[in-house]
Amino acid sequence: MNGAEALTRALLAGGVNTCFANPGTSEMHFVAALDRFEEMRPVLCLFEGVATGAADGYGRMADKPAATLMHLGFGLSGGLANLHNARKARSPVVNIVGEHASWHLESGSALVSDIEGLAVPMSDWVHTSRDASSVARDASAAITAARARGGQVATLILPADTAWSAGGQPPDAPAPPPALQTVDPGAVGAAVNALRSGEPALLLLGGRALRQGALEMAGRIAAATGARLATPYGIGRLERGAGRVPVERLPALIDPARKAFAGIRNVILAGAEHPAAMFAYPDKPRAMEDPGARFMSLAEDSACAPEALRALCGAIGANAIDPALEPREAPLAPTGHLTPDAVLQAVTFAMPDNAIIVDESISAGRNFFPLSRGAVPHDYLQLPAGALGNGIPSALGASIACPDRPVINLEGDGSAMYTLQGLWTQAREKANVLTIIFSNRRYNILDAEMKGVGISEKAGQRARRMLSLDRPDISWVDLARGFGVEAARVTEIGPLIDMVKGCATRKGPFLVEAVLP
Amino acid sequence: MNGAEALTRALLAGGVNTCFANPGTSEMHFVAALDRFEEMRPVLCLFEGVATGAADGYGRMADKPAATLMHLGFGLSGGLANLHNARKARSPVVNIVGEHASWHLESGSALVSDIEGLAVPMSDWVHTSRDASSVARDASAAITAARARGGQVATLILPADTAWSAGGQPPDAPAPPPALQTVDPGAVGAAVNALRSGEPALLLLGGRALRQGALEMAGRIAAATGARLATPYGIGRLERGAGRVPVERLPALIDPARKAFAGIRNVILAGAEHPAAMFAYPDKPRAMEDPGARFMSLAEDSACAPEALRALCGAIGANAIDPALEPREAPLAPTGHLTPDAVLQAVTFAMPDNAIIVDESISAGRNFFPLSRGAVPHDYLQLPAGALGNGIPSALGASIACPDRPVINLEGDGSAMYTLQGLWTQAREKANVLTIIFSNRRYNILDAEMKGVGISEKAGQRARRMLSLDRPDISWVDLARGFGVEAARVTEIGPLIDMVKGCATRKGPFLVEAVLP
Repeated sequence: MNGAEALTRALLAGGVNTCFANPGTSEMHFVAALDRFEEMRPVLCLFEGVATGAADGYGRMADKPAATLMHLGFGLSGGLANLHNARKARSPVVNIVGEHASWHLESGSALVSDIEGLAVPMSDWVHTSRDASSVARDASAAITAARARGGQVATLILPADTAWSAGGQPPDAPAPPPALQTVDPGAVGAAVNALRSGEPALLLLGGRALRQGALEMAGRIAAATGARLATPYGIGRLERGAGRVPVERLPALIDPARKAFAGIRNVILAGAEHPAAMFAYPDKPRAMEDPGARFMSLAEDSACAPEALRALCGAIGANAIDPALEPREAPLAPTGHLTPDAVLQAVTFAMPDNAIIVDESISAGRNFFPLSRGAVPHDYLQLPAGALGNGIPSALGASIACPDRPVINLEGDGSAMYTLQGLWTQAREKANVLTIIFSNRRYNILDAEMKGVGISEKAGQRARRMLSLDRPDISWVDLARGFGVEAARVTEIGPLIDMVKGCATRKGPFLVEAVLP
Repeated sequence: MNGAEALTRALLAGGVNTCFANPGTSEMHFVAALDRFEEMRPVLCLFEGVATGAADGYGRMADKPAATLMHLGFGLSGGLANLHNARKARSPVVNIVGEHASWHLESGSALVSDIEGLAVPMSDWVHTSRDASSVARDASAAITAARARGGQVATLILPADTAWSAGGQPPDAPAPPPALQTVDPGAVGAAVNALRSGEPALLLLGGRALRQGALEMAGRIAAATGARLATPYGIGRLERGAGRVPVERLPALIDPARKAFAGIRNVILAGAEHPAAMFAYPDKPRAMEDPGARFMSLAEDSACAPEALRALCGAIGANAIDPALEPREAPLAPTGHLTPDAVLQAVTFAMPDNAIIVDESISAGRNFFPLSRGAVPHDYLQLPAGALGNGIPSALGASIACPDRPVINLEGDGSAMYTLQGLWTQAREKANVLTIIFSNRRYNILDAEMKGVGISEKAGQRARRMLSLDRPDISWVDLARGFGVEAARVTEIGPLIDMVKGCATRKGPFLVEAVLP
């Protein structure tokens, strides 16, 4: 058995049965090994950022890692942006990078680069396999690392000779589960004291604390104590909609975030990190919270947060209290010409039950979250950490993780451009993804930022040209068709509503270019 | 004066007047500063790999650096693959990365990453500016570094507060020229001895040694001594064609490379590095050269190589000898259906005088180099170091550096996919680039590699699916039109010849999808 086969066996033994791949020469033995195992689903991606973004979306929805497969250091580099997103979303990812045969590294080949050096800034765990006999063990360790802390990026670098050499050891057991942080009674006690103090409190939830079971506990605590429930901007995955416990989303920018924190004295973190504004500005305050606010951590490990919330719920005596649930709010069907909010209302109005919403609409879609709070139950997956090009691939990955659920991807035309190659894989895999392109033909968020940093309202023509996507206009319908994805351009709300409703029964991807003023 | 304005002044003072930009929020002050200087040409790119690839192509043709402008660590990461290519091509690049305001780095913002850590593996020089007053000096140092050794990648990281703060110092002088390696008489003497020994010798040329002036010296040396002239695979820029000194290209793979080196006893490096096979294989030899071959370096610094060749030419007494020149070989016009070689023959037959050929055709175009040796004079720019996605952007950059010269980009359909967004910038900038897509709907090179690593001839269906780009077929005509680029699909040679001829007078880009069997 060669190392490539041992690797595949270890992945399958650890429950990793999907591989988003953009392989090159050094990965040919792994490709050949994939071929021998029916249980492994290889998914070809035409750019590395599609592979890592798909693994991110898959991990968020499957709660287990997919593998990637990339070619050398420069292949990895194309996938780094979406690994950055995956880390912040707490997605489990087993990120596999092929390397030259170890003895070839000193040859001076132009293709050599420092793969570990490139991987470290965007990974939680990095390891290079030494030989064929250690590949299976290393893969199991990577799976364990990927599943730790509610989801991490584990990068495994495989020199070609570790794949092709004999001596591969089949795994003798599945990858061991990661060590789980246990609930800290002291942290629970501190949270109880804070909640009983009568001072305004915010329960800040992240990671696994944003699933229904944990949210019910949080909702009981809120009902019993008056604490508010919130989650930081850049939501990995939130189960929300009518009949579920509502959670505020903290604003990304400092001014509205300070308003959200105004008066709050105690902030209890459960699977969330200390929140920070996305950007800094020359003359604005730096912290979201009031000067006297206290932060305390109920559970740093997102995987432990549900148990910690359960313990807190019991300790505060809220087990029998009904949480407030989001009422169903059936919006009226919007009509007329397209505006950004009309598009969002159409999605809210027409989306099928249990849809997965992937939101990389940046500025155009910023009202989706408030508008859709009373929509049918759905999962909400947001761009986690600002690295553009997450939406198209993560919608693909979410669809492969949940083939029976419709996926609706809200995409800015600027952000869609970074990983548009993912549309082809959506077509090949017949992924049920509706992509809605907010075609405003500009980097709208940068228009706003020009003001935020204090630049005069009327930036000159040359600067303006650096923020606009016109001249020539991009035809997303042509681009989609080029990738084999059915597509339509809409300027009116009526046909858009029909396309959103169509998600319930459609097989395969569809792209709508929503032409905005 | 803020730091952004000081930066722009320093760039312009150092001759850097083109900026390939994909800016984000942290770069808004720089965008605003660009606006105030008419001499600076900002070029918007819709993906970072397009910006760095364009800077690579620009640097190769302009012999001076362009700047890039990217957003934070994840923005840089998208540009790393083409920085890898640029380094190996010895392209001068001033790679500018925006960073958060320095005091925001500790905030815990989800957008923070280790930018220096990401930059180091793909840069020759990395520096983070401390404050507004040092930005101009740092930019000058970056320009000097980019111009050193015949071309390097210099990465300058600019925290937003260094751009927006007052106290920017305008540069008091242009960036100083880099220290040039001087000709080493000992190295010249060693080369003379080797060439006079009567043993077979190879003069291995790279970087600036591949321009006409240096090639004439090399040609004289060859004519006087019988030495062969060659350059490693992955050619940054070679001036070639009828009437010029011919240079062999070493093969990328080990078996044919060993044939090329067979019998050679002395290898004299001038601006080239010790050559290595691109890939390693389980049961093949590792070195290209015969066991007893000696390598000696005439000039490590590519910028010094022309002078060193001149000195060697004089020392060997070859100044009055005429070099052998490539005869004009006017090929017949090919006819009939498309095959890869027929496409290459059509390009060789019909390309305008003084064209720039950008070759990322990988396997389909591998015969272009031998077929076109007697074509009209042209510059030949090859994918330097295997990081796919170099062709479309570097053709853009070459066109911006040389607006009066037609650019013909030979592109594999697999490799074109990594940075296809560059087509939009070609359209916006009206770059005279003819892109010829070799549409064979597969990663053809990987088919060959499957055999090279010893995998059975008939790989299974699942592995095959990972190497094929069909199901669905990609329509490059639709993709090009989506980006505003005129395009046509051809299956016969006749219309292709007309399109290649059209390069001489066309304004703006055109894409041909050459449908291959």
